[in-house]
Amino acid sequence: MKDITAYWVEDFYWKILRVKMIGNDIHNLATALWPIARSITGDGVRQTLDIIGSHLPGLRMYEVPSGTKVCDWIVPKEWTVRNAWIITPSGEKICDFHVNNLHLLGYSSPVNKKLTLSELNNHLFSLPEQPNAIPYITSYYKERWGFCLTHEQRGCLEEGEYQVLIDSDLFDGSLTYGELILKGESTKEVFISTYVCHPSMANNELSGPCVTTFLAKWLIEMPSRKYTYRIIFIPETIGAIAYLAANLQHLKTNVIAGFNVGCVGDNRNYSYLPTKKGNTYSDLLAQHVLKNFAPSFKSYEWTTRGGNERQYCAPHVDLPIASMMRSKYAEYPEYHTSLDDLVRVVTPDGLWGGYEMHRLAIEIIEKNCFPSSLVIGEPQLGKRGLYPTLSTKKSHQEVSLMLDLISWSDGSKSLLEIANLCNSPIWKLYPILEKLIKHKILEIDGAGYSSF
Amino acid sequence: MKDITAYWVEDFYWKILRVKMIGNDIHNLATALWPIARSITGDGVRQTLDIIGSHLPGLRMYEVPSGTKVCDWIVPKEWTVRNAWIITPSGEKICDFHVNNLHLLGYSSPVNKKLTLSELNNHLFSLPEQPNAIPYITSYYKERWGFCLTHEQRGCLEEGEYQVLIDSDLFDGSLTYGELILKGESTKEVFISTYVCHPSMANNELSGPCVTTFLAKWLIEMPSRKYTYRIIFIPETIGAIAYLAANLQHLKTNVIAGFNVGCVGDNRNYSYLPTKKGNTYSDLLAQHVLKNFAPSFKSYEWTTRGGNERQYCAPHVDLPIASMMRSKYAEYPEYHTSLDDLVRVVTPDGLWGGYEMHRLAIEIIEKNCFPSSLVIGEPQLGKRGLYPTLSTKKSHQEVSLMLDLISWSDGSKSLLEIANLCNSPIWKLYPILEKLIKHKILEIDGAGYSSF
Amino acid sequence: MKDITAYWVEDFYWKILRVKMIGNDIHNLATALWPIARSITGDGVRQTLDIIGSHLPGLRMYEVPSGTKVCDWIVPKEWTVRNAWIITPSGEKICDFHVNNLHLLGYSSPVNKKLTLSELNNHLFSLPEQPNAIPYITSYYKERWGFCLTHEQRGCLEEGEYQVLIDSDLFDGSLTYGELILKGESTKEVFISTYVCHPSMANNELSGPCVTTFLAKWLIEMPSRKYTYRIIFIPETIGAIAYLAANLQHLKTNVIAGFNVGCVGDNRNYSYLPTKKGNTYSDLLAQHVLKNFAPSFKSYEWTTRGGNERQYCAPHVDLPIASMMRSKYAEYPEYHTSLDDLVRVVTPDGLWGGYEMHRLAIEIIEKNCFPSSLVIGEPQLGKRGLYPTLSTKKSHQEVSLMLDLISWSDGSKSLLEIANLCNSPIWKLYPILEKLIKHKILEIDGAGYSSF
Repeated sequence: MKDITAYWVEDFYWKILRVKMIGNDIHNLATALWPIARSITGDGVRQTLDIIGSHLPGLRMYEVPSGTKVCDWIVPKEWTVRNAWIITPSGEKICDFHVNNLHLLGYSSPVNKKLTLSELNNHLFSLPEQPNAIPYITSYYKERWGFCLTHEQRGCLEEGEYQVLIDSDLFDGSLTYGELILKGESTKEVFISTYVCHPSMANNELSGPCVTTFLAKWLIEMPSRKYTYRIIFIPETIGAIAYLAANLQHLKTNVIAGFNVGCVGDNRNYSYLPTKKGNTYSDLLAQHVLKNFAPSFKSYEWTTRGGNERQYCAPHVDLPIASMMRSKYAEYPEYHTSLDDLVRVVTPDGLWGGYEMHRLAIEIIEKNCFPSSLVIGEPQLGKRGLYPTLSTKKSHQEVSLMLDLISWSDGSKSLLEIANLCNSPIWKLYPILEKLIKHKILEIDGAGYSSF
Repeated sequence: MKDITAYWVEDFYWKILRVKMIGNDIHNLATALWPIARSITGDGVRQTLDIIGSHLPGLRMYEVPSGTKVCDWIVPKEWTVRNAWIITPSGEKICDFHVNNLHLLGYSSPVNKKLTLSELNNHLFSLPEQPNAIPYITSYYKERWGFCLTHEQRGCLEEGEYQVLIDSDLFDGSLTYGELILKGESTKEVFISTYVCHPSMANNELSGPCVTTFLAKWLIEMPSRKYTYRIIFIPETIGAIAYLAANLQHLKTNVIAGFNVGCVGDNRNYSYLPTKKGNTYSDLLAQHVLKNFAPSFKSYEWTTRGGNERQYCAPHVDLPIASMMRSKYAEYPEYHTSLDDLVRVVTPDGLWGGYEMHRLAIEIIEKNCFPSSLVIGEPQLGKRGLYPTLSTKKSHQEVSLMLDLISWSDGSKSLLEIANLCNSPIWKLYPILEKLIKHKILEIDGAGYSSF
Repeated sequence: MKDITAYWVEDFYWKILRVKMIGNDIHNLATALWPIARSITGDGVRQTLDIIGSHLPGLRMYEVPSGTKVCDWIVPKEWTVRNAWIITPSGEKICDFHVNNLHLLGYSSPVNKKLTLSELNNHLFSLPEQPNAIPYITSYYKERWGFCLTHEQRGCLEEGEYQVLIDSDLFDGSLTYGELILKGESTKEVFISTYVCHPSMANNELSGPCVTTFLAKWLIEMPSRKYTYRIIFIPETIGAIAYLAANLQHLKTNVIAGFNVGCVGDNRNYSYLPTKKGNTYSDLLAQHVLKNFAPSFKSYEWTTRGGNERQYCAPHVDLPIASMMRSKYAEYPEYHTSLDDLVRVVTPDGLWGGYEMHRLAIEIIEKNCFPSSLVIGEPQLGKRGLYPTLSTKKSHQEVSLMLDLISWSDGSKSLLEIANLCNSPIWKLYPILEKLIKHKILEIDGAGYSSF
């Protein structure tokens, strides 16, 4: 609640309503996508993109064949799982992939055999420090098999013969990703990237694609767009690298700002991870939004990165892609375990916050401009009904934000820079700017990003 | 006293004497100007300029006709008041303009009628939170009439019929201002602006024109001036705008520094309001003077502006005009009320401080230069009698300020920058620089402002 | 010990061994040089350089004749002392130059006469605030004679006739200094300067030439050097000025970094005195080494300078010469007295620290470079065995320093800048960089200093 009140006290009730609406819608989408067994390749990704595509007309799916060389990497084999479980000596079926897809080590190769507990233990993964959590573990680039389970369950395993089945395939298929391009007046682009490779976990990561889907819906419904939006749903690391391999020059030429959307679903914190350079347009946008929307947000250093920003800000790539998150990956206890769920961790209210901070940033990109005064010296606001005609001790402060905006409007500073100089959220300046343009006191010229 | 000792302990007694002399002289001028009923136009301004002109040969008076378009504004009608009062039901004359000119709402239109207390109350202004103060209120650009009185007096008004008289005129006349130009060796100018529109109030604002008058006298008496000084006595806002309308290009081409002189008369504080850019030559001058002359000075943000700096730093104007004040307008309890007087608020000592900080800043402008060493490596000070010939533990520190000055004198830094690097008041460097030039250790080249 | 552990915990025991070896060797050299009576000229300097030269093949001695004009100075007469003492009324010989050469005021002219105690007192120097210390005092540029003694001894002098002898000569000789040039692949130079003019004192200053001798030995033994090293052993002030007079243009063209080595022998502190500009390559080197090698080091301001940095950073000279010291001159109680000795003040451990911080800085100069990634996006470390193949919660942090190095390697930042961005000592990056070059992930290009 604190963040919301800090945001815009004036229309508090309307905002509460909006939380319920958009936050619930996003949470419903996450619930629908929850059971699908995603990985960096495979039908789980395709099913996920099908459902997202039903919300986003124009979303296009791409396939990159296994074995394709992308930058320093090779697209791996495609992975399919039909079944996976362990039968205990007493005949109980445990670690059933269909009960929880985290039970299976990601990219496990097929196996069907009997082992002793001691042999099996070499293939089991659990977390002694979180005994009730199933860990999320993968082995994409080295063939292995294994099962993940709670440390509590592991402690109960009896001696004897275990039957293990992993009915999976690793075959020459392809890596799948989705791309949605929304044309704007300008060929300059805003780039938004999110993940579709995580199995059943909520903050990291069903929140990212679900929030991104609703941001894209909002952009689609916009009457007109100044900029072009490029929105991609990809597997982490290899997906970003494959996308860069195909699109790097285009992105370097056209992208003016963008965000890597992930970990945007819980309601405990807001956080910010800068680009490597730390001073791109995206950084200024993120800093402004978070400072004014969620003043208690946490700011991380570039050294704590760990997602696709590693690729987007890699040497010789260096796109202006920052991250605004709720609780950051690796910084909350449920991270990369079965505890990261849609009940205790990710909430409609949390998803609303993740959505709203990105919506505000994009709104700034669309509305930013360079205002310039049309008069020399201060305009006479009184004759236009914009200033109290009675001069008392308090005349000035009643209109001080309007006067501050005029004062900085010399055509050399963007509205975003002016908002920072006025120590005001930029969204408080939108209606004032509109009024001053109507009264022929200010004019605007050029796009807001051009100083970057 | 604290500020004075911080300033220059060495000639403390001489300074005390100076306080008494100049501070008293300025206070006497303020006392002479006190009873005149000034406004943004009218004979009060002319009488004020006549008295100031008797101190400043060369002060020229200008008249700008009512109705003249100046930038976004129109010069208003001229306002004259012959008489104004209220007769109470019991026959008492109150709110007499000739007793205190603050009783009349500034720019009141003429009226002569009888009203009930209830009708009269719509035209009365008082301050419940300062019950013993008459507020200063004006309505320049909308025709109104009204009276200002203490809240205590207002509380005693009985029911019944009141007779109200305002014998005023609003007519096509002109706006009056004074300008004094003191030529120097350079056509580059220092611009000093102060107010002549406030009726009987002391810190804001008889202090400004009175201190400025004595600064101008000091400049007139100067044997030679490096720079040209442009000193104007104008009404607030409309006066500055009228002056800019007539002189903007000249000012933008020539002005290297300047100050808006106001609120320079009480003895409670020193304060600084930057230019909009915050880093002009004027800002560096003000910061250096205040840091070294009055280290406990208060630094305000541009957002707290409220005087003619609004015009001088407006978009497309942006002259380097900063403000050094004693207690800033709107920041002391007596502000814009009858309590701002020459007894309890403004004192000779307060006026001396307001005068001295500006005198020091101007002295810097005149003395600033780019010193450059004439030798390679350190000069041998000993052979010139400038260094102890016996080398002990303490040899260095005895002459450390001289050595620091030499050390920074490579021709790329102004004396003001060097003083800041040496963490010394620049006035401590003046005699040292003179000595080093005499001994052919340093030379100076160019004017000190040229790096701005 | 704290500094050493901060330095590099991994090879702690090896480091301890090294302290004992190098620190003892340097201390032994200081002990050998201790009794020699040095001054700014004379045979004491020549004997000192002879001994140092026995360690440093290629050290060349230069003589600058008395009377030579060097910049603003004149090389003074050469000073020789054969004997100096006082016989008390009771026949005791005190202040014997051969017992402690600090007893004689530096550059005392010859004298042989009888005086009363009162007459003698005009020629005696002692320190009331340090009654057991003989002060170090000189009078190079004005002819005087005098003796220095403890304040305790002075207090015991009886009334009566004193016999004073100073068997010295001031004659047209020369000023002596030593220069060692070690050629490297580049003609760009690293400049190291130290003092040979102080008589029997230890931290200030036998530590400087002794540490410098061992740095030079290490440089001589280096298999190959990227840069040329210019190492000079000179008297303070007049020596540096004479050297600049002969070499200024060469130094300004070629020197990329350097250090003034002095006060590098006690074990109480580490300290840093910047160049005048404060941001030269030498400053960055010193700051990086001290921050990572001795994090509790003390940082001084340029205004506290007092050694040959006065000459090297003088106007129109401005060489990039910074100082890394142990306890700085004038900042420890024994400074410039007989208490500054090789027993209580300067220790093998202290000398090791003085040596090691300079060695580390030079190592950076030799190893600095501009790394650039050979791949687009992140390299696949796993296939090269450089990354864990099992992706768990902790995969990233195990190799985070390697990933940080890669992340910043875009060819625009030096390894030193990258180390600062990674908040890591640069020496931890050397082996990682080597490994990444071997694996064709990074390449290096150009010398590390070129951004300065």
